[in-house]
Amino acid sequence: MNAFELYNPTKLVFGADKVNQLGELIKPYGKRILLVYGGGSIKKSGLYDDVLFQLNGIGATVRELSGIEPNPRLTTVNKGIDICRTEKIEFVLAVGGGSVLDAAKAIAAGALYDGDVWDFTVHKAIIQEALPIGTVLTLAATGSEMNGNAVISNWETKQKRALGSKHVYPKFSILDPKLTYSVPVDQTVNGIVDIMSHVFEQYFSLTTDIPLQERFAESILLTVIENGEKALADGSDYDARANLLLAGTYALNGTLPNGVTTDWATHGIEHEVSAIYDIAHGAGLAIIFPNWMKHVYKERVGKFVQYAVRVWKIDPAGKNDNEIALAGIEATREYFTRIGAPATLGELGINGEQLERMAEEATQFGSIGTFKQLAKDDIVSILAASL
Amino acid sequence: MNAFELYNPTKLVFGADKVNQLGELIKPYGKRILLVYGGGSIKKSGLYDDVLFQLNGIGATVRELSGIEPNPRLTTVNKGIDICRTEKIEFVLAVGGGSVLDAAKAIAAGALYDGDVWDFTVHKAIIQEALPIGTVLTLAATGSEMNGNAVISNWETKQKRALGSKHVYPKFSILDPKLTYSVPVDQTVNGIVDIMSHVFEQYFSLTTDIPLQERFAESILLTVIENGEKALADGSDYDARANLLLAGTYALNGTLPNGVTTDWATHGIEHEVSAIYDIAHGAGLAIIFPNWMKHVYKERVGKFVQYAVRVWKIDPAGKNDNEIALAGIEATREYFTRIGAPATLGELGINGEQLERMAEEATQFGSIGTFKQLAKDDIVSILAASL
Repeated sequence: MNAFELYNPTKLVFGADKVNQLGELIKPYGKRILLVYGGGSIKKSGLYDDVLFQLNGIGATVRELSGIEPNPRLTTVNKGIDICRTEKIEFVLAVGGGSVLDAAKAIAAGALYDGDVWDFTVHKAIIQEALPIGTVLTLAATGSEMNGNAVISNWETKQKRALGSKHVYPKFSILDPKLTYSVPVDQTVNGIVDIMSHVFEQYFSLTTDIPLQERFAESILLTVIENGEKALADGSDYDARANLLLAGTYALNGTLPNGVTTDWATHGIEHEVSAIYDIAHGAGLAIIFPNWMKHVYKERVGKFVQYAVRVWKIDPAGKNDNEIALAGIEATREYFTRIGAPATLGELGINGEQLERMAEEATQFGSIGTFKQLAKDDIVSILAASL
Repeated sequence: MNAFELYNPTKLVFGADKVNQLGELIKPYGKRILLVYGGGSIKKSGLYDDVLFQLNGIGATVRELSGIEPNPRLTTVNKGIDICRTEKIEFVLAVGGGSVLDAAKAIAAGALYDGDVWDFTVHKAIIQEALPIGTVLTLAATGSEMNGNAVISNWETKQKRALGSKHVYPKFSILDPKLTYSVPVDQTVNGIVDIMSHVFEQYFSLTTDIPLQERFAESILLTVIENGEKALADGSDYDARANLLLAGTYALNGTLPNGVTTDWATHGIEHEVSAIYDIAHGAGLAIIFPNWMKHVYKERVGKFVQYAVRVWKIDPAGKNDNEIALAGIEATREYFTRIGAPATLGELGINGEQLERMAEEATQFGSIGTFKQLAKDDIVSILAASL
């Protein structure tokens, strides 16, 4: 086990109708609030009204930034930063899925920074402070509700980059499984893939002697696999939605990487694909991850054997390690296909034209990943296998 | 799954020699420090010198309270409170195991309270504020390093009671597995039992549809069972000690009770035993827990079947549910015995004289537990089976 630090001060408020605590939760932070959300779905569901009722209840002055894109754009983030400055915003409230939360984090950090918020994503500056943030989550997927990370896209340069800081942990996040009842099937599927992918990035590690972290990761995978199918069969299954929601949070709230060298290469590759083609993150991950697995599993086949046996219950009898590992990878692909995720870039209308460029971008700061360090050629191979 | 709140702001600093960050970690909180520790073991190990070196490095003024008992006493806590007041202490630093940490929490809360600190344990007052606390942990056991709970004993009235508050979460806890190399065998054993018992209290629940919380609990148990034996075989096995330490923290840092109705009856019973006989908490739990299990398992045999199969790998073939459940309970007892924990109160020189009194005390506020609500007679039965 490596040395590590664990720190996560976000307060999670989990349960049906917990949005009724929103006013009380925001109160300590101020009354000038920027409300950030996406399309109109929170208006259709009535959540928008519930949120405004809470904000009015504490006498808040509310400014709004709507229309956050599924891959939130720098231009939109900059709009939010402008509002924060001109309106002397004290608190940023994100209501929506991971992209809304990510945009809110970038806005909250950018509002208190003199330069361009993009600087944080390219290591030109470090976040020193941010406006306080709160969230009402409507989608089980990114884990953004309980961590200090965000991903934003520069649509002009076709770049998708991450920023992170302890200053952008949400002060609180409200998780009501009922708010996810109305999530459409395709977004539920993408969320399932996203959660599982977050686990993969931290589970497939060369770090040894980390039994607890491995079992925690397997716990999340087993929970998501089972409850993902239940939530797809019945979108209003409270416990299935609740289990997905909690699993999504734990997949990326700092529990899994304790003392573990994590990978994150597949996310790096997917970011390049969705930066150019604007596809859903989960769809990209479903396509690429099994191909990453096939490309790297021989680096430590034992880890993939453990994955196959513990997560997919592959019977090892009569198989050698490579066969067991490949059966586990195949089971992953079959599950993704069974729940309706795409298996090839071709299904999304993406051909091989930009493979070189994407691989180039992904490795602009050097090779990526740790389970196997991937150079440009590795990434071209993985993407070519994904066509 | 029930509704819940999760909030845990403790920063965990985990790894070899991390005590060298102590000065830097304390700095933001002040320079007038009360150093709380137990017997002389931290002097023998050299840790005391390392801590003082760090405190001198930031120009701290240090007052000391040593001699914290294994079941920390109210009288000792009150000594610490007096020092805090007369010396204008700004920060309480606990260096030791769970009892030292617990004492430090009670001192930190009591120092800023006008009444008797015992009030917090009998619900006469609620903790509104506390001095900031930091810890350097030397023993994998109580989980006190990352929660807001403490247990103290009133030796005059023979009562052992808990207090809890978000105000007494440690600001940071330093966990260096190497500091646990010198823990004697019996304390290592008690720590193992203590960790497993914390999991049991949260795992054996009537709450349904909590697959993630159940698997997390099983993850901790499997990790402790395996690494406990490794640590006992070789006290200087870094990874075994690290895995025990991390498991101990996660057993009681708020991960397991999310949305779960927990039990805690066995801790209530054990507190009465050790309040009168001053035995080690882990020893008392090793004796009582399997007897609690036998007393209650029929309330939901399925949960005990799952426990037997997933944790102890009991083969269910040819057994009915009761037989599988009992085999799991028997495996628990066998493990405790194998690592050297006591199985009967008699081994500790305790006879049946005080059974009634202990059962009376345990139920003074009504029945205890939730998996099965235990009245006085239930507790007498469990204690009688433990003689």
